Amino acid sequence: MPDDMARPLIRGRGDKGGSRCLEASASDPDALVVGVVGTGDFSRSLARRLVASGYQVVVGSRNPKRFMALFPEEVEVTSQMEAASQADLVFIAVFPEHHSTLAELKPALAGKTLVDVSNGLRINLDGPSNAELLADMFPESAVVKGFNTISAWTLQVGPRDGSRQVFLCSNCSRAKSAVMQLCRQMGFVPVDKGLLASSLEMENLPLYLFPSWRLPVLCTLALFFLFYLYNFIHEVLHPFVKSGKSVFYKMPVEVVNVTLPSVALVMLSLVYLPGLLAAGLQLRLGTKYKRFPDWLDRWLTRRKQLGLCSFLCAALHAIYSLSLPMRKSARYKLANVVFKQVKEGVQDSWVDEEVWRMELYLSAGIVALGLLSLLAITSLPSVADTVNWREFSFIQSTLGYCALAMATVHTLIFGWNRAFDPAQYHFYLPPTFALVLILPLVVLLGRLVLLLPCLSGQLRRIRRGWEKTRHIRFTLPEDGCHNGLEDISHV
Amino acid sequence: MPDDMARPLIRGRGDKGGSRCLEASASDPDALVVGVVGTGDFSRSLARRLVASGYQVVVGSRNPKRFMALFPEEVEVTSQMEAASQADLVFIAVFPEHHSTLAELKPALAGKTLVDVSNGLRINLDGPSNAELLADMFPESAVVKGFNTISAWTLQVGPRDGSRQVFLCSNCSRAKSAVMQLCRQMGFVPVDKGLLASSLEMENLPLYLFPSWRLPVLCTLALFFLFYLYNFIHEVLHPFVKSGKSVFYKMPVEVVNVTLPSVALVMLSLVYLPGLLAAGLQLRLGTKYKRFPDWLDRWLTRRKQLGLCSFLCAALHAIYSLSLPMRKSARYKLANVVFKQVKEGVQDSWVDEEVWRMELYLSAGIVALGLLSLLAITSLPSVADTVNWREFSFIQSTLGYCALAMATVHTLIFGWNRAFDPAQYHFYLPPTFALVLILPLVVLLGRLVLLLPCLSGQLRRIRRGWEKTRHIRFTLPEDGCHNGLEDISHV
Amino acid sequence: MPDDMARPLIRGRGDKGGSRCLEASASDPDALVVGVVGTGDFSRSLARRLVASGYQVVVGSRNPKRFMALFPEEVEVTSQMEAASQADLVFIAVFPEHHSTLAELKPALAGKTLVDVSNGLRINLDGPSNAELLADMFPESAVVKGFNTISAWTLQVGPRDGSRQVFLCSNCSRAKSAVMQLCRQMGFVPVDKGLLASSLEMENLPLYLFPSWRLPVLCTLALFFLFYLYNFIHEVLHPFVKSGKSVFYKMPVEVVNVTLPSVALVMLSLVYLPGLLAAGLQLRLGTKYKRFPDWLDRWLTRRKQLGLCSFLCAALHAIYSLSLPMRKSARYKLANVVFKQVKEGVQDSWVDEEVWRMELYLSAGIVALGLLSLLAITSLPSVADTVNWREFSFIQSTLGYCALAMATVHTLIFGWNRAFDPAQYHFYLPPTFALVLILPLVVLLGRLVLLLPCLSGQLRRIRRGWEKTRHIRFTLPEDGCHNGLEDISHV
Repeated sequence: MPDDMARPLIRGRGDKGGSRCLEASASDPDALVVGVVGTGDFSRSLARRLVASGYQVVVGSRNPKRFMALFPEEVEVTSQMEAASQADLVFIAVFPEHHSTLAELKPALAGKTLVDVSNGLRINLDGPSNAELLADMFPESAVVKGFNTISAWTLQVGPRDGSRQVFLCSNCSRAKSAVMQLCRQMGFVPVDKGLLASSLEMENLPLYLFPSWRLPVLCTLALFFLFYLYNFIHEVLHPFVKSGKSVFYKMPVEVVNVTLPSVALVMLSLVYLPGLLAAGLQLRLGTKYKRFPDWLDRWLTRRKQLGLCSFLCAALHAIYSLSLPMRKSARYKLANVVFKQVKEGVQDSWVDEEVWRMELYLSAGIVALGLLSLLAITSLPSVADTVNWREFSFIQSTLGYCALAMATVHTLIFGWNRAFDPAQYHFYLPPTFALVLILPLVVLLGRLVLLLPCLSGQLRRIRRGWEKTRHIRFTLPEDGCHNGLEDISHV
Repeated sequence: MPDDMARPLIRGRGDKGGSRCLEASASDPDALVVGVVGTGDFSRSLARRLVASGYQVVVGSRNPKRFMALFPEEVEVTSQMEAASQADLVFIAVFPEHHSTLAELKPALAGKTLVDVSNGLRINLDGPSNAELLADMFPESAVVKGFNTISAWTLQVGPRDGSRQVFLCSNCSRAKSAVMQLCRQMGFVPVDKGLLASSLEMENLPLYLFPSWRLPVLCTLALFFLFYLYNFIHEVLHPFVKSGKSVFYKMPVEVVNVTLPSVALVMLSLVYLPGLLAAGLQLRLGTKYKRFPDWLDRWLTRRKQLGLCSFLCAALHAIYSLSLPMRKSARYKLANVVFKQVKEGVQDSWVDEEVWRMELYLSAGIVALGLLSLLAITSLPSVADTVNWREFSFIQSTLGYCALAMATVHTLIFGWNRAFDPAQYHFYLPPTFALVLILPLVVLLGRLVLLLPCLSGQLRRIRRGWEKTRHIRFTLPEDGCHNGLEDISHV
Repeated sequence: MPDDMARPLIRGRGDKGGSRCLEASASDPDALVVGVVGTGDFSRSLARRLVASGYQVVVGSRNPKRFMALFPEEVEVTSQMEAASQADLVFIAVFPEHHSTLAELKPALAGKTLVDVSNGLRINLDGPSNAELLADMFPESAVVKGFNTISAWTLQVGPRDGSRQVFLCSNCSRAKSAVMQLCRQMGFVPVDKGLLASSLEMENLPLYLFPSWRLPVLCTLALFFLFYLYNFIHEVLHPFVKSGKSVFYKMPVEVVNVTLPSVALVMLSLVYLPGLLAAGLQLRLGTKYKRFPDWLDRWLTRRKQLGLCSFLCAALHAIYSLSLPMRKSARYKLANVVFKQVKEGVQDSWVDEEVWRMELYLSAGIVALGLLSLLAITSLPSVADTVNWREFSFIQSTLGYCALAMATVHTLIFGWNRAFDPAQYHFYLPPTFALVLILPLVVLLGRLVLLLPCLSGQLRRIRRGWEKTRHIRFTLPEDGCHNGLEDISHV
């Protein structure tokens, strides 16, 4: 790698741009020539951005004449060999399956920094990565992996709206730091990912499809189907079997609308359960230095997704509920009820208990939804970034438990005394709300137990570094600041 | 420009702040004096931020005594000439129409870097820009355009919540890189916009009023008025003319609520139509290296805005629909219907077909709205930044087509068999839903055609760089990594 | 402080990572050893991130053997004294109450940079800060305060999603700039907060609980309780006292749903009132260079929060309203009304005025809610960052006043002529909507007055720097660019 690499990567452009600082650019020793091998979309966007950032760019192509027109005029389009020879730092922007065609460039690239921007076609868990293969091919060059998570589009419009982070890794810190400098010059924020061994993970990054959402979404779907089946049997099949009454019209809306809140409430409990388990484990082990079992660790990191799935179900439940009276079936039913009332001459059909039950569970439901909405808004990345740790914990823990409590109250009032009414036990199955209430009640109870002074004090001590097995005082000062120490009890 | 400019821009402040590193600051050679000419809001916020970032600041004013009190005490407020002489780098923060009053400073500013932070009063498309005029006025200084998109407020509170990007351009790369360094020191992210010729565009930036939204919003409004007129004739005028029945009360809510979903569905089709056209064009030309016609290019870049307009209409449609049964008119109608039912002695008015139709189209509508909400949330900048290209494409293309399909199903079930009912053809005009369905059905069909193995394979090849006219293999390796290559098929 | 500190902080890792750039790393003079004293969560995350960013890390512990297993293997865990001696820059990551135990390290730390990452347990307004106490303890070291707002979690996963800003302050600019460099290398964006005196504020930052929301939320709650009480007396107590009619069932839903829109409309007026007051004050004083009274300044900076509180109430009002017809009470009432209609033989109960009133106020309400939603979405940080000042002002001022006007129209039509109906004056109290309308009407009238050409022209002149007391022309050029000058008239 030539010595030039270590110098700041700023190239004089005064020669083109005007007369005002000719003397400065004339004496500018930092001219760095950046090469790009390949002429695809990515190459072209890259070349354009490099030019806009003040670099001299030379593009290497197998067919320079054909592709020249696709590049800005400041870019020199030439043969691959010529580009490799001229440039101090070379971007390799050809499909990885054609890396082998670059073998002839080996002498020209010796001692230079190569930036591999390629991605795989499918997730590769075993390695080696494209970048490692390239490094094996060019043992005398310093290979840096990077820019593969940046799209051609982001390169072209500049890193304004999109993500600005460029991940980089390399076994050569000098080459890496040169590429980092170049990144910053282009307006991106370089993030060092360590040695080239990280390149495999980096190449997989653009191929992942919501890995952190898989489990929560599967969990939501599984619960949905289970509860749907249960409610179908309970609400539709039972009257059909018992009295031949066909209420199959309930399947698209009413059964869904009993299923959604069940899923929402169980999922919301699942958000707060792992925090309780973790606290219990810490209390039992008397230390926070033992690692949690893997399943608990994974569960703890998925709480945000679980919470958002719960919110989605709750919001859909609200829309379904609000649309109930608009349906033809509701209007027919109401008309028939009134018809009956008229026929029977009942002047006032008012049932005070029913009225109060509905007004109360409606209120509790709206409040719970409002609180959940606040939680959802606060989990938007840009909002989460503006709150400090204490505020985040207040929203996610305090408001979150309030939302869980209100949702539980909503369900309890909805149920009223019907859990004890044998008529509700179709096929000996309890009504859904009775089943659904178990988990949230357990979680709320667990939380109350942890608020007991003896337990909460102990827990606070443990989370500040205290350990049951050695009551020696000097372990305390070892602990760092308290940021994130209590992370465990929150989403 | 003095040599000092090239050194890191860090000034010792130890002389004020304490005794701990006096030796370091005493030997610090990097003290850079930053001048600010002008005493307006922007100047004051700028001076405050510069002081907080560790610079020595001198402000030049025509009336130093009067304005001294408005600046922090670390700032020296003096005459414009004095400030220009002392400073190494000078911010010009006077209104551009008064740049001419600075002519007398020319000798003092020679060889220095001037930063022009001014904005125009109205959009200037012809040039020259303020910065170019300033550069003509001070040929011996290096003019850098920048900071004009940053508000005085952002400067004052620091770049915490607001945008951190500072656009910079200049013909002198050395001056530009010095200002970039200063930017970073102030906590901003400098973005190089190239030569001073870009300054015209940069000065216009703060004056634009949603340029990318103009067409989509106009399109939405035009469709809204067209469909409103059509529905007004169909639903209100027809009964009035034919049977003298006055249903003008439908105008504020019911007619709007038939118009909104029509607009939403047509707009959603317009989101996916250009992608199909682009794919068709690529298949026909057999290459991706031909540019699309301009109108298609512009259409492709406006898909996000079209989609969000569609979502807005869909959300309003949902709210209007949900509020239907709450209206007095609905209650009066229901009461009258029941009255009639009682008078006629009809015990059960239940119509199974009507019930099923409504339950089904309601379900489809809610699911479509849910999917559209996910699309809308994902298009928030901070959320879009956290997904990779594959995830983005999954949401915007796969989920988007699902939403379009569900919305089409919603409309189809809503229509049921009424498209074939002559009674629905008022004034020989077909019911609205029949008209609205044409475009989405065409788009969905087009998408299905493109999924045929022969076409999709061909398309994939073309998008990886293959060309019909030359089946030579060596064009393939020219292509870059696949990021964004398939951009065309997505929002 | 050794001279090494001034060099770029890049350490060769080639010795571990492979053979490709051994020569470079062998000659690399920039190896910087970073020490971390303490072994808590924060220390471990910090050490991990430092290693990933290419630094050689040595951790000082009182019990190295015990904690070795908790650190990555590249980290050397040794005694505190040993770590302090080896490192060039030392992070102090022990609880501040145990800083005193570090006294013995004084000679080893002399001349070095100490980074204090600690936080307090409670808000400390009087000082001294932890960092200042540390600086007093180690007068021969350069203390930098920083990283305390970053959580252990953010350090561990890297600054990808979370906030990237690291606040730093120090009395030694050289030490500060070294830590800034280290920050950037770790992927964070350092923000210089000036001298060590700022450390008190920085240590309080993670302890604040929504300081800017306190007043707006209190204001919302106070208004809510006042209006609730008023409505309770007006709607529930009055019929009970006057005619013994018990309508207490209205308390959870109906009374809340009259209260919420009142709060929303008054709060929305409070968003636009301070801008009018500020404009009036400027017009009266004839200058913008006089500071506003403190209460007005605070009010102006809380407009966003007031607006969001107003939006929350409006959204809840919408949900409550939409859920009205679903309630049992609404159905019983409707049934009773129809029963009465049938008994009295009224074939058509249609009242055209009532129908029109409702259709119109419903429409106005939905439009107002739609506009408020746009305002709320635009106030999300990531959306606000993508609009320029003119767009922001268009949304927050123009659309905002439209929303206020539509909400006022909504309330006016809702009221219709009932403000003049003595039957509405229960206990001589006017109906709520009449009270609520006062403030928005005043604000809208004030805005119209300010649109008068004579006043708006004068105001524009004043905001460009003109002053009544001296009509001298040369004050104009003193003014900076117009960014943010008109800030005052907007949210």
